[in-house]
Amino acid sequence: MDLSAIDPNSTPGFSGKKADGQAVLAAEATELSELQERLFASSREGAPERVLLILQAMDTAGKGGIVRHVVGAVDPQGIEHHAFKAPSDEEKSHDFLWRIEKQLTGAGIIGVFDRSHYEDVLVHRVKSLSPSEEITRRYAAIKDFERGLVAEGTRVIKVMLHISKEEQGARLLERLERPDKYWKYNPGDLEDRALWDQFQEAYQIAIRQTDLNDAPWYVVPANKKWYARVAVQRLLINALKDINPTWPPADFDVEEEKKRLAAS
Amino acid sequence: MDLSAIDPNSTPGFSGKKADGQAVLAAEATELSELQERLFASSREGAPERVLLILQAMDTAGKGGIVRHVVGAVDPQGIEHHAFKAPSDEEKSHDFLWRIEKQLTGAGIIGVFDRSHYEDVLVHRVKSLSPSEEITRRYAAIKDFERGLVAEGTRVIKVMLHISKEEQGARLLERLERPDKYWKYNPGDLEDRALWDQFQEAYQIAIRQTDLNDAPWYVVPANKKWYARVAVQRLLINALKDINPTWPPADFDVEEEKKRLAAS
Repeated sequence: MDLSAIDPNSTPGFSGKKADGQAVLAAEATELSELQERLFASSREGAPERVLLILQAMDTAGKGGIVRHVVGAVDPQGIEHHAFKAPSDEEKSHDFLWRIEKQLTGAGIIGVFDRSHYEDVLVHRVKSLSPSEEITRRYAAIKDFERGLVAEGTRVIKVMLHISKEEQGARLLERLERPDKYWKYNPGDLEDRALWDQFQEAYQIAIRQTDLNDAPWYVVPANKKWYARVAVQRLLINALKDINPTWPPADFDVEEEKKRLAAS
Repeated sequence: MDLSAIDPNSTPGFSGKKADGQAVLAAEATELSELQERLFASSREGAPERVLLILQAMDTAGKGGIVRHVVGAVDPQGIEHHAFKAPSDEEKSHDFLWRIEKQLTGAGIIGVFDRSHYEDVLVHRVKSLSPSEEITRRYAAIKDFERGLVAEGTRVIKVMLHISKEEQGARLLERLERPDKYWKYNPGDLEDRALWDQFQEAYQIAIRQTDLNDAPWYVVPANKKWYARVAVQRLLINALKDINPTWPPADFDVEEEKKRLAAS
């Protein structure tokens, strides 16, 4: 995996244009929603499977849009979304995975992490918030942690939304030109932008270090928002199809219950 | 408020038919979503407001459909949904509001309670799970609790979805006739159905006892699912319009940031 060789403008696996992508997104929203309902139903009868979508990206890459436009198609009952901000003092006093574990979802649920434990090897590396040997330890800890998630029935989908520095510049400028977007802008964003190359390197290393057969990384070109949404929707649908949840059989005598109901 | 005088088949305030209702639901989904985004944005700059939608109803009345079809229009980032099941032993060892308080949302969020602290005066009354003096104490405790929520900036919307016993019978039968609905059926549902009149009485009393100016009850006729959805959507939109959240102003120098960005 060579991040610099992946064109953020590309649309791998999809030959259509924006309108085609939007049509796919709308059409497959129903399939995603139905698959999730089956997942939820099967969990009620003890099926252990769940999905964890981890979204990582540079600012403005479109994590929020994925949540709104892809995850938003699913029944809110079946979603648990958590955005990880800078850790609190209490969180800092624990191992970096402590606050992550608290947000893991139960069976039948699609969990969505907007940022994650990967911040602890990305920003921590770029800004030297932890010593390099600790960063190295964390790659291994993350792999152990994610293998444990997989073992308990979690499909772990790790997505890096990959934009170009030019595209980020255009999106930040839009936030400065639209008063309804000011709230999304933070002057500190430019400090991270100044470290663009270092962040790309940190992503490159983290992805290589933590790419697991059972919990692979997907680098999704994201200069075209519509494409990134279609791609992540497809990842979710494929994970759910792979689980192939089935409607639980009746654990009661259907005909007997019909009689009881008729008499009620 | 006389529950028995409210026709579950009626559609108060709405003169259209099903297709009209569905069109309204689709058209206003965008408004609801936009208002919620503004609420979320304003909270980032310190606005304290949030919304708490409490859904109570007999089985099959359509709580789940409200969540999927009304709340589902909103960005998942702005929703926290919690379904209260029968309390655990730990929860039972605390005051009945203990587990409720843990699920209260922060500013900017629409919280949705599928069942709530009202179970502790409804099923507890009908099945004598608590002594009557304790139930009486709870009505007062609930009012104090909800006044506290209102004081901290919460719009509390309490909805009883009101169906007829006949409609419940038809919906339970559907669950017994469709294998993809078996998982929603529980033989215990018929025990509650046998106590229909007692539950109606318990609702009647609870609603009268806890109807507050700042946290009123809405009895929503729900034999027509489309109507109940339109009505609850309207309640949410009205609450958000009443808050009237505004886009936060820039807390930075916009022109200066444009220069910094151009130089980056």
